Amino acid sequence: MAARPAAPDTRTRLLETALELFTRHGVEGTSLQMIADALGVTKAAVYYHFKTKDEITEAVAEPALRQLRTVVHEATALRRRGAQVDHVLAGVVDLAIQHRALAAVFSTDPGVARALERTLHDEENVKECLTELLVGPGEDPAAAVAAHVALAGIALAGGSPALAAVPDEELRAHLLEVGRRVLGRPRRVTRG
Amino acid sequence: MAARPAAPDTRTRLLETALELFTRHGVEGTSLQMIADALGVTKAAVYYHFKTKDEITEAVAEPALRQLRTVVHEATALRRRGAQVDHVLAGVVDLAIQHRALAAVFSTDPGVARALERTLHDEENVKECLTELLVGPGEDPAAAVAAHVALAGIALAGGSPALAAVPDEELRAHLLEVGRRVLGRPRRVTRG
Repeated sequence: MAARPAAPDTRTRLLETALELFTRHGVEGTSLQMIADALGVTKAAVYYHFKTKDEITEAVAEPALRQLRTVVHEATALRRRGAQVDHVLAGVVDLAIQHRALAAVFSTDPGVARALERTLHDEENVKECLTELLVGPGEDPAAAVAAHVALAGIALAGGSPALAAVPDEELRAHLLEVGRRVLGRPRRVTRG
Repeated sequence: MAARPAAPDTRTRLLETALELFTRHGVEGTSLQMIADALGVTKAAVYYHFKTKDEITEAVAEPALRQLRTVVHEATALRRRGAQVDHVLAGVVDLAIQHRALAAVFSTDPGVARALERTLHDEENVKECLTELLVGPGEDPAAAVAAHVALAGIALAGGSPALAAVPDEELRAHLLEVGRRVLGRPRRVTRG
């Protein structure tokens, strides 16, 4: 009997399972064997798709990282500071809503930062670019603290089990409103 | 040669080392053997103080948890809502400043919540009490989102390497100011 090619969604299921285990056990507390067990496949089947856990971590983070990079580039192209801040805020809130679980794990798990550092070491640091766009020129500690509270708070609130019952669109509106208050932006989005 | 009793600060050094490893590897990524190796002692020496990693996690978190419980009880005793919110905010910021590394690990590591659940299952959930004090009576999602952003943002900003150069007193002032904006409180602390 000829070996069947892997079903087209095995890779997707693997990444979803990995994220679930990362959320429960942290990246460093999750092994390839645990991922294989949760999927009900052999470790060899996992190896068919990914050689290391770093590769899995990178693949889990990739869509969100790509989206963040787009937000950074779009914001950088805007001329007015206020418009840049509004664009970054809207982009980060979108991401937190679209990937509620991912946002929490990937903002806080020390294993993720290390895995991405090992595999993406030549890339620009997206998180740093986001913070710089929010803080603006100069090194104002008050603005830096506000930017960190906004980014961490939005990412974690998106993944918080206590807010799981709040529908996406409602959570989005509240996060935008809180983000504007933290960053000292007016309630209505200004035009760039 | 008679065995010398353990130095009085071995337990303290053990807990400091454990926190350092938790910060780097997450609670679930840290083993008793890793703690022993980092301390330069045998695993038996670690067992002399703690039988399980849960016990270590609980002991690392204990001082901060005790302090949080005090804040909750003091705030609950205040009559005015605004004074309750101000008291919780000041207490949480104090804690984030006093234990910068701890605050970040213990607000976000999934291993911590599980360890505390296993060992302190009869205790009230302090985090829930804090959130309730900030949100107030009723189930206003906007207030719940603001409370989560404030608590997560303050805890994570305290432990952020990017803000490590900001002196304690300056960080405290900025976190209080941002917290007031998030929670919709006036700039000056009102009297209870």
